[in-house]
Amino acid sequence: MDETIMAAARERAAGHRRRFDLRFEAYFATLPECLDTPPLSRFTPHCLDLLRDLSLRGGKRLRVALLYEAARLVTTDPVPGLAEAALSIELLQTHGLVHDDIIDDSPVRRGGPSTYYAYRQEFPAADHTALGLAILAGDLAAFLSMRVLLEADVPAELRQAMLEVQLNAGAETVAGQLADLERDLRPLPDEEFLNTVCEYKSTRYSVLAPLRLGLLAAGEDLATHDARLRRYASLVGIGGQLRDDYLDLFADDAATGKSTGADLRAGRRSYAVTALLAAADEPRRAEVEAALGDPHCAAETVARIRELARQLGVDRKLRTDMRRCAEAARAEARDWRPHWREEAVAFFEGLPLSNVVPGE
Amino acid sequence: MDETIMAAARERAAGHRRRFDLRFEAYFATLPECLDTPPLSRFTPHCLDLLRDLSLRGGKRLRVALLYEAARLVTTDPVPGLAEAALSIELLQTHGLVHDDIIDDSPVRRGGPSTYYAYRQEFPAADHTALGLAILAGDLAAFLSMRVLLEADVPAELRQAMLEVQLNAGAETVAGQLADLERDLRPLPDEEFLNTVCEYKSTRYSVLAPLRLGLLAAGEDLATHDARLRRYASLVGIGGQLRDDYLDLFADDAATGKSTGADLRAGRRSYAVTALLAAADEPRRAEVEAALGDPHCAAETVARIRELARQLGVDRKLRTDMRRCAEAARAEARDWRPHWREEAVAFFEGLPLSNVVPGE
Repeated sequence: MDETIMAAARERAAGHRRRFDLRFEAYFATLPECLDTPPLSRFTPHCLDLLRDLSLRGGKRLRVALLYEAARLVTTDPVPGLAEAALSIELLQTHGLVHDDIIDDSPVRRGGPSTYYAYRQEFPAADHTALGLAILAGDLAAFLSMRVLLEADVPAELRQAMLEVQLNAGAETVAGQLADLERDLRPLPDEEFLNTVCEYKSTRYSVLAPLRLGLLAAGEDLATHDARLRRYASLVGIGGQLRDDYLDLFADDAATGKSTGADLRAGRRSYAVTALLAAADEPRRAEVEAALGDPHCAAETVARIRELARQLGVDRKLRTDMRRCAEAARAEARDWRPHWREEAVAFFEGLPLSNVVPGE
Repeated sequence: MDETIMAAARERAAGHRRRFDLRFEAYFATLPECLDTPPLSRFTPHCLDLLRDLSLRGGKRLRVALLYEAARLVTTDPVPGLAEAALSIELLQTHGLVHDDIIDDSPVRRGGPSTYYAYRQEFPAADHTALGLAILAGDLAAFLSMRVLLEADVPAELRQAMLEVQLNAGAETVAGQLADLERDLRPLPDEEFLNTVCEYKSTRYSVLAPLRLGLLAAGEDLATHDARLRRYASLVGIGGQLRDDYLDLFADDAATGKSTGADLRAGRRSYAVTALLAAADEPRRAEVEAALGDPHCAAETVARIRELARQLGVDRKLRTDMRRCAEAARAEARDWRPHWREEAVAFFEGLPLSNVVPGE
């Protein structure tokens, strides 16, 4: 039963992704004509190329699926404004990724070079120029993500409501990223703080904003539904973060396609790292803390810490937390049935389950 | 005659500045309540404090004066939306300053620490954390600068037209900053390229956007006037840049309050530096190029280069260019008399003259 619901949700998400990717490509194809840029400069078209490459390499487009399915809670008719909302959501994501990869000093993103490192490769003798160019590229994506909403062929009031959602999402995400840096300077942040960071850093723009935009475009009055949207979004956000943090410590490299222990090496007090610190006795905690934030921490050390975490039951605890989040989110979505279209509600019921990693 | 016009323009600008500074302070006083931020985080309120400090330390507020005087071209009645437009303009400026100071690695801004260096002082052992916090602070200012326009109590169409002006200004300024970094990698950029950089990097958001916002708020149809606004703005923009670049090389330290030769040391192909490179013969050009981009270039070397520039008539050339720009801008503004209110036109006639440095 769970499998059927999840498979259906995945298939629908894949359809949204295919349609959106074509539209995103078309957006970047016409962008140079729609943007007034210095006629003699080569750096601006090059910057647009880098933003395009990063944007089109992109991920599962779960945000786009949430947006379109939120509108389908209300109607199966075509809904004007969704296309521009989807572009806005993913351009805001591009903005965040470009700046995040500077902040985290990440060379790789979505299987290619991060924008920062693409510039560093071009200017090997001028790291500071590369830094400047990458900051500017991220800024440009932020302005574009808001500007694209102005093109939505919808009443002015709706366009403004959508801009408000996205501008707030942008500002709140920055606040979440600030809190994220703050978290990693705390010896042992409590779970409430971890949840807060997750809520602001990722839930707001990744889950809540797409839901709000989809319902707004479909003509719903947000105020009536905001409390239930927030509860659902928070649970899905935390579930997704728990999953990411779990996989970063416990997954095989082969399964995730990237080396595990990245959070540990970067000194991130993730859900997994924090649970481990909380469960360990004094000498073992010292061992974990010695590795935490050491970018050169050896693979064997990561493996030993992973083994320690397993002994202490951190993997079981996180899997239990994920399942609890998913069940609670699913129950929230189930309560939507009297208000909204059942077929779309089923998507929102199925989605949280994909955040659960099955036990071994 | 010129003196009277200039003095009147200065006095009116000072009035706009005083009124705006009070409003800007009030904006920051209520901002924490208007922004949804992580309840347990100290980094977000601190970030808002740094943005507030930098914003309120700020400059001549010439952009604000341009905005209000543009509205007065049409009416002396109070014009709804100007207050929010002014906040948007100055918050966009704050955004630009925070990121510029990272890009230029500038410790000082407006007589205090740049936001980047304020963070570096707080985290002396974690430069990369300071970098991340400063990038985020600039991002936050960008979102706030657009969000504040949503609060303007004007018809939805006007609010959107204002958002469009500011979002385009933001994107075009980024393109100008990209071209600015490109300029400094060219051996000898031509004047056309320098003018293009100036147009996108500063004129668009500093002169053209305030003019457009003021006229829009006052009910004017922009399309009718856009060509004349652009001509005026470009001339004022280039005049102001010529003046800045001139003072950076030729002024006494005491007159500008900062050490001269900063452009030279930073490797900036400013109007002054480029004119000098163009006028120098081969051995002297080599001497200038040896100093260009050397942050440790001695004061005596700067003094020798300044003397060389004087011998080659670079100072006279720049003063002539400034005067020509100012006269042309003034003539443009004079042509506004049949369309707009004379008293405000006089302000725009007087303003360009303040960009002219008198001969010695």
